[in-house]
Amino acid sequence: MEVQIAVAKTNKYAVTESGDTLEVVERPNGGVSVVLADGQTSGRGAKAVSMLVVRRVIALLADGVRDGAAARAASDTLYTEKQGKVISTLNIISVDLQSGTVVVTRNNPAPFFMAHNEKVDCISTPSSEIGISRNIRPVISEIPLEPGLTLVVFTDGLVHAGDRVGRPMDICTSIKAVLEDQDPSPRQVADSLLAEAVRLDDNRPSDDISVVVLKVLSRTGDDVRRMNVRLPITPRS
Amino acid sequence: MEVQIAVAKTNKYAVTESGDTLEVVERPNGGVSVVLADGQTSGRGAKAVSMLVVRRVIALLADGVRDGAAARAASDTLYTEKQGKVISTLNIISVDLQSGTVVVTRNNPAPFFMAHNEKVDCISTPSSEIGISRNIRPVISEIPLEPGLTLVVFTDGLVHAGDRVGRPMDICTSIKAVLEDQDPSPRQVADSLLAEAVRLDDNRPSDDISVVVLKVLSRTGDDVRRMNVRLPITPRS
Repeated sequence: MEVQIAVAKTNKYAVTESGDTLEVVERPNGGVSVVLADGQTSGRGAKAVSMLVVRRVIALLADGVRDGAAARAASDTLYTEKQGKVISTLNIISVDLQSGTVVVTRNNPAPFFMAHNEKVDCISTPSSEIGISRNIRPVISEIPLEPGLTLVVFTDGLVHAGDRVGRPMDICTSIKAVLEDQDPSPRQVADSLLAEAVRLDDNRPSDDISVVVLKVLSRTGDDVRRMNVRLPITPRS
Repeated sequence: MEVQIAVAKTNKYAVTESGDTLEVVERPNGGVSVVLADGQTSGRGAKAVSMLVVRRVIALLADGVRDGAAARAASDTLYTEKQGKVISTLNIISVDLQSGTVVVTRNNPAPFFMAHNEKVDCISTPSSEIGISRNIRPVISEIPLEPGLTLVVFTDGLVHAGDRVGRPMDICTSIKAVLEDQDPSPRQVADSLLAEAVRLDDNRPSDDISVVVLKVLSRTGDDVRRMNVRLPITPRS
C-alpha cells in the first residue's frame, strides 16, 4: 500500500497572507498527520490565530498525544488566550500506522468527503469551531486504511465559493465528476476542486481556500518517501 | 519567482525505521524551512534522537527564533539530555521571505552543493555535528533568492553510498550530470541522486539516505501553494 496526499492552497483575492495554516508532520509512532486551521476573518490576524492552533496541535502530536486530545487542548488554549472572542476551525487528518486507520478529527462546520473508489459520502455531522467555549469536542471518524479510499477535506473558502455571485459550488457533484476520470491522482483532484472554486469566484477568491486530498493506493513503486513543495513568491508591496 | 522543493528519503536496507527525520514547516514571517537531522546509528534509537532534534528546532522556528540560534539550542538540548554521548547532524534550509535569501544552517560534516544554472559549487567548510560538546556552532550560508539557484543537501548515507563495495559515489559529478539535462525539476534531481546511491549499494542501502533539492525558478504558474506527499507503507513484521 501507499498513501498519497496533495494539498492546494490559495489566498483571498488581494490579501498576501493566508488566514489558513497547514502543516504535514510525521507521527512519532509511524505515519503522518495533516493539520489544517482557518482563523476567523482574514489576513495577519487570522494567520496568527491559525498558526497558534496548528503549532499547539503539532507539538502535542509530536509528544504522542492522541488527535482528539490535541484538538481539545488547542481549543482550550485558544479560548484561554482570546477569552472566547476568536474562533478557528481545525481538521486533523492522520495516517496512523499503529491502528492501520485514517483518523479524521474535525472541529469545522464544513463537511468532508470520503470516497471508496467512485462511491462518495459526505460526512456532515454537526461540528463546532474551537475556541468558542469550554468543553468543545471534535467529531472523530476512523476509517480503515485500504486501497481505493479517497478523503477530501477543506476550509470554508471552498464551501462558499461562488456565493457572492449567486452560483454556489456543489462540492459533492464536483468530487464525483473528477473521481469518474481514469484513476485521478490526489494532485488532480485537489487542483480541479480549487480551480473550480476560483473560477466560480471570477478568479478573485472571496476567502482563503485550502484543499487536502488523501488517497490510499495499492503499492505501485519503490520504498522511497517523497515530498514536493511549490511556493509561489509574490513581491511584497 | 517560485521555489520548488523536493525531498526523497529511503531507509537502510532491512530496517523499517529511518534514523533520519525531516519536516517542512512554514516560517512565521513568511517562507518555509526544511529541517533535517540524522541521529547516530540507525533504527529506533537514532529515530528518537533525530525526532528530538527536529522537534526542538521547529518549535523554536515557529516562535520566530533565528535558524542559527535554533541550531545552537538543539545542540545544547541534545548535549544536556544525552551527556554528550549521542550526536546528530542537523541541516536547516530556509526560504526567508523577509531577507529575500535562502539560509543554509549546517551542523554536518557532509558538504552541500549550490548551483547557479549549471555551475556547481561544493560547500564543504568544516562543520561539527550537534550534541558532541558545549558551544557547538553551525556554519551558515546566506544565498540571494534568485532564479537559477539550485541547492542540494543530504545526509551522510549519500556520501557513503557504494563505500562498502569499493565504488564510492562522486556526488558533484552526479549533480553536474543531472543539471546538464534540460532544466530538470527538483524532483528529477532528488530521485536521480537517490537512485544512483541505492544502485551503488546494490539496492541494499547501507544507511538511511535523505536528499533535499531546492530550486528557485522564474514564476511559471498560478498563485497556488502546493504540497504532495507519498508515503509507502511497509507491512510491519
